[in-house]
Amino acid sequence: MPESNYLDAYSGTGVSSDAASRSLRELLPSIKKTFALRQGTGRPVLDIGFFANVLDLGGGQGLAISTDGVGTKILVAERLGKYDTIGIDCVAMNVNDVICVGAEPIAMVDYIGVEMADPSVFRELGKGLLRGAELSGISIPGGEVAQVAEMIRGVSDGRGLDLVGTCVGLVPLDRVITGSDVVEGDALIGLASSGIHSNGLTLARRLLLDSARFNLNSHVADLGRTLGEELLEPTTIYVKFAVEALRAGIPIKALVHITGDGLLNLTRVAAPVGFDIEDPVEAPPIFDIIQRAGEVPVEEMFKVFNMGMGLSAIVAPEEAGGLLDLAGKHGHPAKVIGHTSREPKTVRLIPRGLAWKGSH
Amino acid sequence: MPESNYLDAYSGTGVSSDAASRSLRELLPSIKKTFALRQGTGRPVLDIGFFANVLDLGGGQGLAISTDGVGTKILVAERLGKYDTIGIDCVAMNVNDVICVGAEPIAMVDYIGVEMADPSVFRELGKGLLRGAELSGISIPGGEVAQVAEMIRGVSDGRGLDLVGTCVGLVPLDRVITGSDVVEGDALIGLASSGIHSNGLTLARRLLLDSARFNLNSHVADLGRTLGEELLEPTTIYVKFAVEALRAGIPIKALVHITGDGLLNLTRVAAPVGFDIEDPVEAPPIFDIIQRAGEVPVEEMFKVFNMGMGLSAIVAPEEAGGLLDLAGKHGHPAKVIGHTSREPKTVRLIPRGLAWKGSH
Repeated sequence: MPESNYLDAYSGTGVSSDAASRSLRELLPSIKKTFALRQGTGRPVLDIGFFANVLDLGGGQGLAISTDGVGTKILVAERLGKYDTIGIDCVAMNVNDVICVGAEPIAMVDYIGVEMADPSVFRELGKGLLRGAELSGISIPGGEVAQVAEMIRGVSDGRGLDLVGTCVGLVPLDRVITGSDVVEGDALIGLASSGIHSNGLTLARRLLLDSARFNLNSHVADLGRTLGEELLEPTTIYVKFAVEALRAGIPIKALVHITGDGLLNLTRVAAPVGFDIEDPVEAPPIFDIIQRAGEVPVEEMFKVFNMGMGLSAIVAPEEAGGLLDLAGKHGHPAKVIGHTSREPKTVRLIPRGLAWKGSH
Repeated sequence: MPESNYLDAYSGTGVSSDAASRSLRELLPSIKKTFALRQGTGRPVLDIGFFANVLDLGGGQGLAISTDGVGTKILVAERLGKYDTIGIDCVAMNVNDVICVGAEPIAMVDYIGVEMADPSVFRELGKGLLRGAELSGISIPGGEVAQVAEMIRGVSDGRGLDLVGTCVGLVPLDRVITGSDVVEGDALIGLASSGIHSNGLTLARRLLLDSARFNLNSHVADLGRTLGEELLEPTTIYVKFAVEALRAGIPIKALVHITGDGLLNLTRVAAPVGFDIEDPVEAPPIFDIIQRAGEVPVEEMFKVFNMGMGLSAIVAPEEAGGLLDLAGKHGHPAKVIGHTSREPKTVRLIPRGLAWKGSH
C-alpha cells in the first residue's frame, strides 16, 4: 500500500488532525477564561494539557478530574456484537489519566449515548464497567443514558453507541505530580500495555479492515487468536500499582499515560527535559501487523500507538528497582527503557535512530 | 393530528420509553455493585436516582457529582447554524442537578464528540460554555474532544455534534439535601423556566417541524420571535439563587430540577409525601403551541416538559417568603404553587383535575 493511502486514512482519524487542532485553538481561550471564575476553594491548580486537572478543595486536599471516552474501539465491539469489555476500557482511559497527577481515583460517572437502547447491550456494558471499577477500586455513583437516535450512529442501523466517563480522584495538593522536578539523568520506566488499548483504533481499523481486508473473525497466527479478540483486548488498568507506589512514598516524579500521540505524551512532563529511550518495551505483534498493512512509517507508528508501553514512570535512578518490583507484583511487565536528557521536549528512540519534538 | 400520531412520535423520543427503561434495569445491578467497592473516603453517600450523588471526602466534606448532556437541542442549533448558547445549556443541565443535593457547584468538564471538527463551531461552543460558567461561578478545568465521524451524526453530513458535561460540587455531609425531612403541609415553591430548557426537544421538534410543518426561521406571533430563537433559548441557571439560599442558612428541604419526566421529578423527593399543586407557574406560549401541534394530552405535557417551572423548592411554610425574596433578587419569577400532601409519590394538579403517580 503506497504511503499516500496511509496518509489519506490518517487524515480522517481526528488524532492530531489539523481541523481538530485548529478547533481546539478556537475553544481553549474561552475555557481558560473560566479558570479565573473560581478563587480559593474549587480553583483549578493546573493549566490545561496535563492528564487531569486538580481542584483545590481546601485544607490541602486536591480533587483530580478528567474525562475521556472509549472512541472507535466501540465500533469493533459493535461489529462483533461483544459489549462486555468496553466498559473496562472506559474506566481504564479515565483512571489511568487521573493517576498521572498522583491522585487515587475514587469514582467515575458514565455517559451512554445510544441510537436505540438495547437491554442486552446494556447488561454487557454493565459487566465491563463493574469489572473496570473492581480493577480500579472505584465506585460508579451515577451516570446518564441518552437515547438520541438522530445524533448517534454505528456500524449498522440501530446499533450506534457512545461511551464516555469522567473520573475523580484525591491527591494532597503538596503531592500533585506534574513532572516539574524531573531532571536530566532520571530513569524512564516503561510498563507493558495489553495491546492497542483505546487509541489509534480508527487508523488500525481502516488499515486492517478496509485496506488489507482482514476479517475480525479470522484467526491470525501471529496473534494466536482472532483479530477481533486482539483489538477488543481491554486496556490495562494501572491504578493499584500506582496507588501502592504513591502510598509507599516512592518519590515518583512523573507518570505518563501513553494514549493518542504515543511517545509524544512523554513531552507533557512539565520539566524542560528530553527522553532518550535505549531499550523500548517490546511491541506486541498487532503493531507489526498494522504497520505492514499500511506501510506506515515507524516514526508515525510511535506517534499514534502505544507500541507496547501503556504507562511510563520517571524516578531518580536509585528508585527504579523498587518501582519495578511493585510493577511486577501487580502483574505489569516493566523495565527501565532509558533516561531523561537535556534536550527539552525531545523524544529519541535510540535503537531506531528516530527523534520527535513535542509541542506540549 | 390524531392521538395515535402523537404516540408514534413519542415512542421514539427515549423519554421514559420502554426499551430505555428495560435497558436501565439491565445496567443498574452492575452499577450498584460498584458502590461496595469504596468504603470510607470516596464512598457514595446516596443511592442511584437523586439528581446527583455525593461522595464522602472525609472530614465531613462531600463531593456532589452528576453528568448530563444537552441532547437533541443540539439539532436545533445545527439547523440554525447557531452554536453560541448550547454551552450554556450544557452547564445548566449539570449545575442545576448538583444544587439539588444542596451542593455548591465548583467545576464542570465537558465532552465534545464531533463528526468533523469545525473551528468556527468550536469557537461558538466556547462562548456558551464560558457564559454558563460565569452564570454558575464554576471553572471548566478540562475536557475531551473526540473526532469520531463514524459514531456521531447530525442534521446533515459533517455537522454531527454531541455535548455532555460532568459537574462536581461541594456540600458538607450533614447538609446534603434529599428531601427526606419533607413533611405534609410544606410549601411547594416554583421558579420560572426560560421556556423548554433542554428536555422534550425530540418530541417538540417532531410535532412542530415534522408534523405541524413549522419552520424554525418563521416568526411566530405568540412567541414574539422565531420558533428557532424560542427553542434555543438557554436553560435557566439557578445556581446563584440556590447557593445564596444555602449559605444564608434557609432550611431548604428539597430542590427539584424539573427536567425530562416533568412534574414527576417531584416524586424523587425522598420523603413519602405527595405534591398538591393549586396554583402552577404559568406555562409560556411555546408549550401551548407544542400541545396544539400534536394534540398532546395535557397529562402527557406535564410528564415531558417543564411547563414553565424549571426548579421547585420545598420549605416549611414560614420559610417561603424569604426564599421567594431571594428568587426575586436573582431574577427568577417565583411563587408558592401548592403544598405537600399525605399521599405518597402522588402529584396532583388541582386546577386541571389531573394526578400522576411516581415510580421513584
